[in-house]
Amino acid sequence: MRTNLDCLPCFLRQALEAARMVTQNEGIQRKVLNSVFSILSNVSVHTTPVEIAHLVHLRVKSITGDYDPYKEAKKKQNELALRYESTLSAQIAEMSNPLKAAMMFSAAGNAIDLAPNCPIPDIYKRYMEMISKGFAWDDYELFLKKLARSKSLLYLGDNAGEIVWDKLLIEELLDHFDMEITYAVRGLPILNDVTMEDAHFVGLDKVVKIISNGFDAPGTLLDRCSEEFLKRYKTSDLILSKGQGNYESLSEEQRPVFFLLNVKCPVIAVDIHCNVGDLVLKAQSNHARFHH
Amino acid sequence: MRTNLDCLPCFLRQALEAARMVTQNEGIQRKVLNSVFSILSNVSVHTTPVEIAHLVHLRVKSITGDYDPYKEAKKKQNELALRYESTLSAQIAEMSNPLKAAMMFSAAGNAIDLAPNCPIPDIYKRYMEMISKGFAWDDYELFLKKLARSKSLLYLGDNAGEIVWDKLLIEELLDHFDMEITYAVRGLPILNDVTMEDAHFVGLDKVVKIISNGFDAPGTLLDRCSEEFLKRYKTSDLILSKGQGNYESLSEEQRPVFFLLNVKCPVIAVDIHCNVGDLVLKAQSNHARFHH
Repeated sequence: MRTNLDCLPCFLRQALEAARMVTQNEGIQRKVLNSVFSILSNVSVHTTPVEIAHLVHLRVKSITGDYDPYKEAKKKQNELALRYESTLSAQIAEMSNPLKAAMMFSAAGNAIDLAPNCPIPDIYKRYMEMISKGFAWDDYELFLKKLARSKSLLYLGDNAGEIVWDKLLIEELLDHFDMEITYAVRGLPILNDVTMEDAHFVGLDKVVKIISNGFDAPGTLLDRCSEEFLKRYKTSDLILSKGQGNYESLSEEQRPVFFLLNVKCPVIAVDIHCNVGDLVLKAQSNHARFHH
Repeated sequence: MRTNLDCLPCFLRQALEAARMVTQNEGIQRKVLNSVFSILSNVSVHTTPVEIAHLVHLRVKSITGDYDPYKEAKKKQNELALRYESTLSAQIAEMSNPLKAAMMFSAAGNAIDLAPNCPIPDIYKRYMEMISKGFAWDDYELFLKKLARSKSLLYLGDNAGEIVWDKLLIEELLDHFDMEITYAVRGLPILNDVTMEDAHFVGLDKVVKIISNGFDAPGTLLDRCSEEFLKRYKTSDLILSKGQGNYESLSEEQRPVFFLLNVKCPVIAVDIHCNVGDLVLKAQSNHARFHH
């Protein structure tokens, strides 16, 4: 996906958020913003949003001296999701189509902030509201068909907290299909995206093999990923890609990818032909074999 | 009100919107953004948001060569509001407290986009929903008391479209109180703010005296306003200030001002102790006489 001019104010907003995670010093925050102005003045619009985000957050890290600004935030998100895990797992089991429900919970997990003091019934209610609307783009039947024919699936993780719902979905998948699943995390900390540490923290390494994609962009920049990752990416029968960042970086690739996400940004909404707030399960439209 | 770092991404977003009003050429839009990066890099945070917005939009105007980017948008907003005028006027007359209702409609007018194809019943419904919630900050009784003791009122206008609801409110005020009302517009085009042209277009000049504040900021920068305006500002018994821009520039002044607005921005929400979406009627807290 190409960068839209609307993305530029948003990078600035993100950089400010990241700087505030690390310091309350407005002088440093301003220094970060000024430095981002300079990056954005010079960047080509043919650069993808994920590449620009990588540059911006690298700058935030070097100015603040903190290479993991979201460390505490991620820990809290993981802890809260783990607290809700058994409740949500029971809920999924009760639903008429547990696999599809687990996919929706996983997509919705990206949208719902796990506030520390929010009681479980409220979290519940908000998930159920999102899920009752179903997928706005629903390639579930196609996904099922592909699953039945696949021996290997590469699952591209996105955020902390949400990784616990990824675990529930992966358990459902393993219950129904005889396949090898690999879960990919970012190579180094970037925003609240999952790294190896998060996968271990939530016990996902007990369920599937975890690999690192080898790079610290908030998405999947194939030309910067590790050999280990690329090998899986090129040989897996099926790829399940979570979240906006992975969509932005892979939406034009020629692999059997299904994108599972909550649409949170108007630029992506236009690109993916859905609305902000929608849950989406969409097959890679460039992958001709899907549509025969 | 002081500029918050959160305002910086927002100035950028506004500049892009203004540039798009004038041209679809992405090269020019990008040139505007790059120029705004340079302004924002150098501006002091002690500058008020309205002063920065003035600088930013002056730059948009000089780069695009169009000194009234919102001309067409404003004309449409005024035409649509005029179409709804008699319906809303009848609605106000039917309500239990028509003056308070007219104030709420005027504040809500700032929030509701008059979409060209939106049927009157829908516009109606959305207004009634906002108004049913009442003022989140309600200094109406204090305002009434001040009105009864005032012989002159200076009304600071804000946006096109909304100016028609200002007219309905002013007609209500003149029905109930024997006072001289003056309506102030911006000195030159800025965003979709009202100028002399809009006041004439909607016939407000038939109801009250219209004056220009002499400057093209999206608010009231007293040190840049005309002598004519300042004289009224300093001598009026009461000032009714519409919208966020006027609030941002006058919130710390020492005059008997009532701020009537819809809160649309989180920075203002914090400053004014309300939430985004709220309708507010708030007395100037620095003006000691109000509170005795």
